[in-house]
Amino acid sequence: MNNVASEKQLLLEIKPILTSFDVELLKSLLLQYRPEDIADIFWDIELDEAKFIINHVEKQKAVEIIRSLDEELQERFFKGYTAQEIAQDVLGFLDSDDAVDILSILPTQKAEEVLSYIEDQDYANSLAAMLHYDDDIAGGLMAKELVQVKYNWTVSQCIEEIRKQAEEVDSVHAVYVVDDRSILKGVVSLKDIVLSKPHISVIEITNINFIAVNAYATGEEVARLMNKYDLITIPVVDSMTRLIGRITIDDVVDFIKEEADKDFQLQAGLSENVESSDSVYILSRARLPWLMVGLLGGLGSSMIISNFEGDISHLPKMAFFMPVVAAMGGNAGVQSSAIIVQGLANNTLKSKNILPKLGKEFTVSLLNGLICSAILLSFNMLLGHGYDLSIVVSSALVTVIIFASLLGTITPLVLDKFNIDPALATGPFITTINDIVGLGVYFLLGRILLGAI
Amino acid sequence: MNNVASEKQLLLEIKPILTSFDVELLKSLLLQYRPEDIADIFWDIELDEAKFIINHVEKQKAVEIIRSLDEELQERFFKGYTAQEIAQDVLGFLDSDDAVDILSILPTQKAEEVLSYIEDQDYANSLAAMLHYDDDIAGGLMAKELVQVKYNWTVSQCIEEIRKQAEEVDSVHAVYVVDDRSILKGVVSLKDIVLSKPHISVIEITNINFIAVNAYATGEEVARLMNKYDLITIPVVDSMTRLIGRITIDDVVDFIKEEADKDFQLQAGLSENVESSDSVYILSRARLPWLMVGLLGGLGSSMIISNFEGDISHLPKMAFFMPVVAAMGGNAGVQSSAIIVQGLANNTLKSKNILPKLGKEFTVSLLNGLICSAILLSFNMLLGHGYDLSIVVSSALVTVIIFASLLGTITPLVLDKFNIDPALATGPFITTINDIVGLGVYFLLGRILLGAI
Repeated sequence: MNNVASEKQLLLEIKPILTSFDVELLKSLLLQYRPEDIADIFWDIELDEAKFIINHVEKQKAVEIIRSLDEELQERFFKGYTAQEIAQDVLGFLDSDDAVDILSILPTQKAEEVLSYIEDQDYANSLAAMLHYDDDIAGGLMAKELVQVKYNWTVSQCIEEIRKQAEEVDSVHAVYVVDDRSILKGVVSLKDIVLSKPHISVIEITNINFIAVNAYATGEEVARLMNKYDLITIPVVDSMTRLIGRITIDDVVDFIKEEADKDFQLQAGLSENVESSDSVYILSRARLPWLMVGLLGGLGSSMIISNFEGDISHLPKMAFFMPVVAAMGGNAGVQSSAIIVQGLANNTLKSKNILPKLGKEFTVSLLNGLICSAILLSFNMLLGHGYDLSIVVSSALVTVIIFASLLGTITPLVLDKFNIDPALATGPFITTINDIVGLGVYFLLGRILLGAI
Repeated sequence: MNNVASEKQLLLEIKPILTSFDVELLKSLLLQYRPEDIADIFWDIELDEAKFIINHVEKQKAVEIIRSLDEELQERFFKGYTAQEIAQDVLGFLDSDDAVDILSILPTQKAEEVLSYIEDQDYANSLAAMLHYDDDIAGGLMAKELVQVKYNWTVSQCIEEIRKQAEEVDSVHAVYVVDDRSILKGVVSLKDIVLSKPHISVIEITNINFIAVNAYATGEEVARLMNKYDLITIPVVDSMTRLIGRITIDDVVDFIKEEADKDFQLQAGLSENVESSDSVYILSRARLPWLMVGLLGGLGSSMIISNFEGDISHLPKMAFFMPVVAAMGGNAGVQSSAIIVQGLANNTLKSKNILPKLGKEFTVSLLNGLICSAILLSFNMLLGHGYDLSIVVSSALVTVIIFASLLGTITPLVLDKFNIDPALATGPFITTINDIVGLGVYFLLGRILLGAI
């Protein structure tokens, strides 16, 4: 068992070699590490050092390292490569899905140039075709490398085919059975091939009750199907149900993680996928748009409140409870919208029917609102803020919690209906609206219940 | 190709049968649906209807349906089953990992009773042993069902072994090679077995440079390894590196999704995993704790502000800008903490060294703070709020954004150091603290800069 190496250890060992240029030592050190582990240290070394490493491991491993790099690093890395080098030294060693991923991060012109350097014209054409799919649909997630056999073959013919394609297809989990027009007829597990007599017809062990996806199915749909039916691979077909590729679960895991990250970022008010190691400029740019939304909202609040300047000057204590009313509205709204957003994402939402949900949300928020209001009322009475003001604050609180909860329930459902990412509704957007409305309600109630103060 | 059925359609077709009790019709209808699809409608039917369905599909399919149910539904469902029925009719048809999942949702006493009804004493013992692992570590995620072969066997002996275990092990992706003391020596892919001559020794095609995990490795670590090295299965070993189980990627996908959901919930201020279909009581209970945190924070704010009652009564306009200061602090703080939390979760955080991060965060927040303050200043001057007040508001804004950003950076790192889920720092907790501090800073600045107003 050769378990995983720590990034720090490799970095410690490799640094002196990178300055001494001891090629033999470098080679023997790199032999001990997996490509994924070598890729890890690329954040911490210079571009020319990275190239030095890549040039001194065997081709297949070099390509595996490049494939494992973060997209940002790949982009930086390929700036130092000519189109010809990328075509011949990199893409030639990669599966088509990884090749397309790399082509898609290159500037369009360079990508086309790379394609022109690929010797196998058919392969270049199919890469070009795959480039047309967005990277969040089945066609963008699939790879072309798969083992396909004809439905009238025997098991031993299938084994021969696997042997032929073994070099091109790294990992075989299933064999796809097609007819003469490439139409997908079924799937055979490798286990059944191992366990069957060589002379029987493959159709006898073929599962014809399989699940496939169209090339234009969304990544979410692919993830949902593979997750629900515990699939390791899923075949991709065109509109004529001809087999055009297959998606493996590891690509879908990446997709699921990216989707979850996106929701988390939207909820936190980040407009791009940023990491703390990004530049100050990128970090600022990702954060500023949502801060602006908050700022606009704040200006809105200030205008609302300015209508109540007289009330405040009459009873400055009104100002004491502005934050609690605003904050509680924000909190309750985000809770409601998060429940809906998660239900939409996990497909656990029974129906998208808004009305019954609003009814329930009303009950829940009324209950929580009353509990919070009662506690606040007791505190305010104890602290001697007077009966009238305490009643106003608590009435405003329960109203705002109910309003914010209903708004938090409706907004993601409406966004979803218009095909906008509902996770938008869990972020600063909903908090900001709730701030404004909450404060308006609070001061209006104050004016009504406290009389013409 | 028999693609996926819609839940609605099945429900529509099955409802009349459930009232007419037409067994033959029911059987033929259920034959057309996958177990995962049948499980979907269990939310919408009564318990006795569910049992009626389970009793009229073949055993293996019935168990697949039960396995696919949501944990909450399983719990409800098993209340109507005796320990003996669960042992014989359900667990007997499941892989060990799924069996343990079901045992773990039963009350302890019933689980023990179920174990006593399992005829194969060795199997019962191993289930009992697996029950001791938490469900978020490798031991709790693994299944015992795997194909293991001895290192001195030939390929044809391996194929014989796969055949023997074929009934027990549904899907075989890899074969594990062990020595006489069960110590894991390597992994063989099924593809290599298919492609090898029957008489060669399995050790010749064994990959000895494999990755395994200890039974006590965290689920996060398992997910990270499988994701990084694109693994479909990973073997689990004990402290002596003896093979005790294997984890497949589909269980890890579930784990990754649950973890992402947990972070999302913490960020939204939900204390349990709830769905909009949960009862009002459960929904309220999940939401109330964080509302209480917000409430306490609001009380804190009100006490801080009450110290400035004189200032407010003197200059009621001060109240106009309380919301913008509080909200912007909250937004900036959540942004910072989300970046750190995501870095911790995705292992992209170079070092956990706090100081350089704070330096960068200071620059980013100073930049964003200055931009926001400048905009707010121009607006306030335009709206005629006067130079003095406008300067106070904008100075407070930049101070609060910087403070909140630094606090948002530190908090998750500190929580992580104490092994508390850092995602806690992205929720109402950080917003609440920022509200209080922000308003304090604002009024203090007001008092200082506006003189003794």
